[in-house]
Amino acid sequence: MSVARTRNGIDREAGQLAVPLSRMLREIREQPGAVRRALAVNERRVEHIAAEFRRHDAQVIVLAGRGTSDHAALYAQYLLQQVTGIPAALATPSLATLYGTTLRLRHAVVIGISQSGESPDIVEVLRRAREDGALTVAVTNQPDSPLATAASETLYCAAGPERSVAATKTYTTTCAVLALLASALPGGEALRPCIARVPDLITAALATEAQIDRAVTRYVHARDCVVLGRSFQYSTARETALKLEETCYVVATPFSSADFRHGPAALVERGLPVIMFAPPGKTAEESRELLDWLRASGADCVVVAQDADLLERGTTPVALHLPRMEEHSGNATTPASTNAGAADIRASRVGGDVDELLAPLAYVVPGQLFAHALARQKGLDPDHPRSLSKVTRTR
Amino acid sequence: MSVARTRNGIDREAGQLAVPLSRMLREIREQPGAVRRALAVNERRVEHIAAEFRRHDAQVIVLAGRGTSDHAALYAQYLLQQVTGIPAALATPSLATLYGTTLRLRHAVVIGISQSGESPDIVEVLRRAREDGALTVAVTNQPDSPLATAASETLYCAAGPERSVAATKTYTTTCAVLALLASALPGGEALRPCIARVPDLITAALATEAQIDRAVTRYVHARDCVVLGRSFQYSTARETALKLEETCYVVATPFSSADFRHGPAALVERGLPVIMFAPPGKTAEESRELLDWLRASGADCVVVAQDADLLERGTTPVALHLPRMEEHSGNATTPASTNAGAADIRASRVGGDVDELLAPLAYVVPGQLFAHALARQKGLDPDHPRSLSKVTRTR
Repeated sequence: MSVARTRNGIDREAGQLAVPLSRMLREIREQPGAVRRALAVNERRVEHIAAEFRRHDAQVIVLAGRGTSDHAALYAQYLLQQVTGIPAALATPSLATLYGTTLRLRHAVVIGISQSGESPDIVEVLRRAREDGALTVAVTNQPDSPLATAASETLYCAAGPERSVAATKTYTTTCAVLALLASALPGGEALRPCIARVPDLITAALATEAQIDRAVTRYVHARDCVVLGRSFQYSTARETALKLEETCYVVATPFSSADFRHGPAALVERGLPVIMFAPPGKTAEESRELLDWLRASGADCVVVAQDADLLERGTTPVALHLPRMEEHSGNATTPASTNAGAADIRASRVGGDVDELLAPLAYVVPGQLFAHALARQKGLDPDHPRSLSKVTRTR
Repeated sequence: MSVARTRNGIDREAGQLAVPLSRMLREIREQPGAVRRALAVNERRVEHIAAEFRRHDAQVIVLAGRGTSDHAALYAQYLLQQVTGIPAALATPSLATLYGTTLRLRHAVVIGISQSGESPDIVEVLRRAREDGALTVAVTNQPDSPLATAASETLYCAAGPERSVAATKTYTTTCAVLALLASALPGGEALRPCIARVPDLITAALATEAQIDRAVTRYVHARDCVVLGRSFQYSTARETALKLEETCYVVATPFSSADFRHGPAALVERGLPVIMFAPPGKTAEESRELLDWLRASGADCVVVAQDADLLERGTTPVALHLPRMEEHSGNATTPASTNAGAADIRASRVGGDVDELLAPLAYVVPGQLFAHALARQKGLDPDHPRSLSKVTRTR
């Protein structure tokens, strides 16, 4: 399908009426630049926060967010534990806001995430944590927001205004900023030379747009689906399910592939759409087995993968071609990369797994594109989901 | 509907053929006795573990489980934080089993949950945690299982053999045992005189069976639904969604009511089934507002609640009549209750909230009954969900 992009934001396809480019699609496409900016503006801040981490003798990390921000928190829960070895928890904000619970947080790092910086419950979690002696970090796209004010440290997404209700670039910039923080912490040395190439990963993932535009037609009348990912990609599954719910009104239920086998597998019947994120690496063998089982059960699988043997197991393959991070890390040019010597990298806790750790920032892009393209084909406006406004306030 | 129960396990309904009583329904009905047993056999063990908690200077609690056990872990994450103030995390088992990650757990308590005690990943999480110096606790229905062997301490569900694939009594006994542990920890004093009355709560919840048998007919052709609960009842929502998936093959997607407003609310359209757990207490006002919004949006709401003003907001009210825990706590007769003096109870961190903290053990019962009754009405065998076996082994 040939698509010509004109300057005034119109996509023109052969034989179709011109359709105005949605804000959501513009913001999806802006992600490489947004992430590059986010990495640049937080370079020094993460060094400072890393020093505070050590000074604070952090014994536990707590991450708080709602909706898309909770999925970024989930990604960071895996990444920060893998890098630092410090146990990390997702917060339970209602305990603070409804039950007035205080937690013992003197040796905790509490990270609050909100693109608007206005979620009252997340602000409250940070405010109390700071009172209780925690090191508090806000991650937000609004540096003057209540969230930033409540925290002692702020990481700024620098994503530019996000006008689509369905968040995209604030998700990837948040994940990127948290990965940058991980790269500055002891144990994260091997990430440093690679982190600057995350925008290239996202650019490569954007190349799936045309494939996805063709692929979604098959799913226009799907009412529901299952979305699967494991470990670092569990956050990708959850975020993709949320995009499908917000923009396509599809009841999309996400699972870690491991939990899926403990019950929800009974859902699978002929024709059930299943979207599976199946990157190379430590989870690939399990993905292969599960895809074989799903195919034998008649599921209609969308497989987002790089490896041919995983892609060929899907009804609808979405082939990603991502640059290898570790091989090319010598080309990285950010200041951070120059701080990491060969000895540091050997000492890193994440030596051989860097590609897997950063892959979620690329894999979510086909998820975003799929939700967007499906909404358009269903005749829905992805920028204005029914019932939602951009800023949600929960107590 | 008049139902006569015969000794050989046949439910006979006026004007209907006799249908053999399923194992699942038997096990649902066994829960008051199973929980009573679970509380009795762990009375001394929790005192011992509580002493170890103190000796260990616990700074963080990590809970690991899959499927239904993960939902019990989620309940305990809220409960143990509320009671002890110690931050609690749900584990990320794949980091241990796939990536070989070690965590800093010298001041951690790691609780592994598996009814069979055979989930290899949960066993591995406990084994590594014990090596890393954590206090490790197994919660299992099989005291000789690999999980119990891997841990330094074991809490035993004593639920008797669970033969239905869909877990019910191992869920409530696990939650009860964890609540008993919470009641033995500093901060949990106010729970002590009430915990022995949890079987009465469950008995009261079982009285919804006839209402639910009548109510499910309306949902026989529902393909998908949303299940909502907040805070302590978020685990109830997740567990109910899993039961619906396993036994009814309904794509049921659970949300914390707070997260629901951050996007998934867009799913709601005329006729969408929404099951909402709406207990009295700190979450009631939010439940009321959300039910009003759902009704205005045309959702078909099953409301499980005690308060008339919440029940009347639902399309299908499921009325619970639960005894008050705090008022009647003077009648409690377990040894634990005699250990708690008036001063202890005043010092407790959970003074006025005991009913809300224990309510999830009752509220899940209508969820179980709903899934069971709906499966029967759909002509499905709840004891033998397609594609599943009782013990699931994930790496």
